[in-house]
Amino acid sequence: MEGPSAFVRSLGIEVAEAGEGRARLVATVRPEHLNFHGFAHGSFLFALADEAFALACNSRGPAVARSTSMEFFLPVREGQRLEAVAREVHLGRRASTYLVEVRSEEGLVALFTGTAYRFSDGRSPGGTSGGE
Amino acid sequence: MEGPSAFVRSLGIEVAEAGEGRARLVATVRPEHLNFHGFAHGSFLFALADEAFALACNSRGPAVARSTSMEFFLPVREGQRLEAVAREVHLGRRASTYLVEVRSEEGLVALFTGTAYRFSDGRSPGGTSGGE
Amino acid sequence: MEGPSAFVRSLGIEVAEAGEGRARLVATVRPEHLNFHGFAHGSFLFALADEAFALACNSRGPAVARSTSMEFFLPVREGQRLEAVAREVHLGRRASTYLVEVRSEEGLVALFTGTAYRFSDGRSPGGTSGGE
Amino acid sequence: MEGPSAFVRSLGIEVAEAGEGRARLVATVRPEHLNFHGFAHGSFLFALADEAFALACNSRGPAVARSTSMEFFLPVREGQRLEAVAREVHLGRRASTYLVEVRSEEGLVALFTGTAYRFSDGRSPGGTSGGE
Repeated sequence: MEGPSAFVRSLGIEVAEAGEGRARLVATVRPEHLNFHGFAHGSFLFALADEAFALACNSRGPAVARSTSMEFFLPVREGQRLEAVAREVHLGRRASTYLVEVRSEEGLVALFTGTAYRFSDGRSPGGTSGGE
Repeated sequence: MEGPSAFVRSLGIEVAEAGEGRARLVATVRPEHLNFHGFAHGSFLFALADEAFALACNSRGPAVARSTSMEFFLPVREGQRLEAVAREVHLGRRASTYLVEVRSEEGLVALFTGTAYRFSDGRSPGGTSGGE
Repeated sequence: MEGPSAFVRSLGIEVAEAGEGRARLVATVRPEHLNFHGFAHGSFLFALADEAFALACNSRGPAVARSTSMEFFLPVREGQRLEAVAREVHLGRRASTYLVEVRSEEGLVALFTGTAYRFSDGRSPGGTSGGE
Repeated sequence: MEGPSAFVRSLGIEVAEAGEGRARLVATVRPEHLNFHGFAHGSFLFALADEAFALACNSRGPAVARSTSMEFFLPVREGQRLEAVAREVHLGRRASTYLVEVRSEEGLVALFTGTAYRFSDGRSPGGTSGGE
């Protein structure tokens, strides 16, 4: 688990720190990350938060995302530096939940919550895009 | 509003149909879309659903995403063809809500719900990544 | 599983129909269900939707709610008749997801999504309020 | 805004503290709050969290709930004392978002996120159960 995945690396997202139940990722908004309004695409912010969640939850053993929610607060402009910090809210036998804050220099731009299934029996997971 | 955005086009996502309050997008999973388990990254599925939502809600006038949730059901493999269909659940004066189903040949792989603010006063929005 | 629970019955919520993976519940808004704005309390609408979800998911064997989301669209007044219809979106080995529409005579007033853990091994669940 | 509402008071929920953008509510689980598994009903926990959210967001001026999500972690038994603490995550011109932690003596039992519309123009809201 030395992540992030190729998909996320291709977006310019980097791991700043990762440990047991936590992760901190960073990225800078590039022209190719913008939506048709000229701001960072919500999916780019999601990828940043979701990968922080994936690293944090997989640090506890194999797990796959099942339920996520994300609230968007502030628009983000090209060139802005973003940081996503994932922290563990609950670690159960069968599932775990993480909260991820995404911040720019202007403050909290988005909040993500993710719940993952755990495969504590060592069974190979079906992917972070769901699967049982 | 002839979308999708450059960000989403760079992921190989295409608009199959779009109209008043609805949109249908398609994509094929490529090697660069995979996560470290070897399945389509959840963020790739999110981008597909989120852009269907963005096109559907902006078809009613300028709007920005505020709250989203996504449930992941089945893993998706490289080469699989995906379709995301957004339909309008509620269109209010200040906000609108859409439900997006993401399907592969194997069935429903994920379900997305998105709520957007509307700028019915013609004020320029702050971006689909939130903003007021 | 002949529900609803005593808690839900005390709110005047009744089961109109229930079957494999589905349920339909009804209720009429009473004075004691109102919030300080004089409309049906969001928690009352949640109880109606959540119990439809609980009956639908437990029809497949013991299960407990893990993740829920609810969007509120229209205010509901005293005396209005409400109906909540739960339908199965995904039934997996470990988890299941249901969508519940809450309607009044005026249309869709709220939309609920719920994901439950399944106890297919026959182990006694920890309650619909979570638990592993 | 001296809350809580009659509906919530009838459930035995009490306000321990409330202020600008925050609220703390408490309740003890009674027999009538149980579900058919014998644990506190998820809707009871929702009512506790939702009312903390309602008090916190209305402390900033009239507002109505639009989007909520709730994750359930631990079962709660009869007689247990619960506390819900709402804190402000984002206060914008048009909307606000709050995070509510629900705790028992055993730790965090549930996590709630709520987003409300604000009526900064002084227009009367349509109720905390949505409305525009």
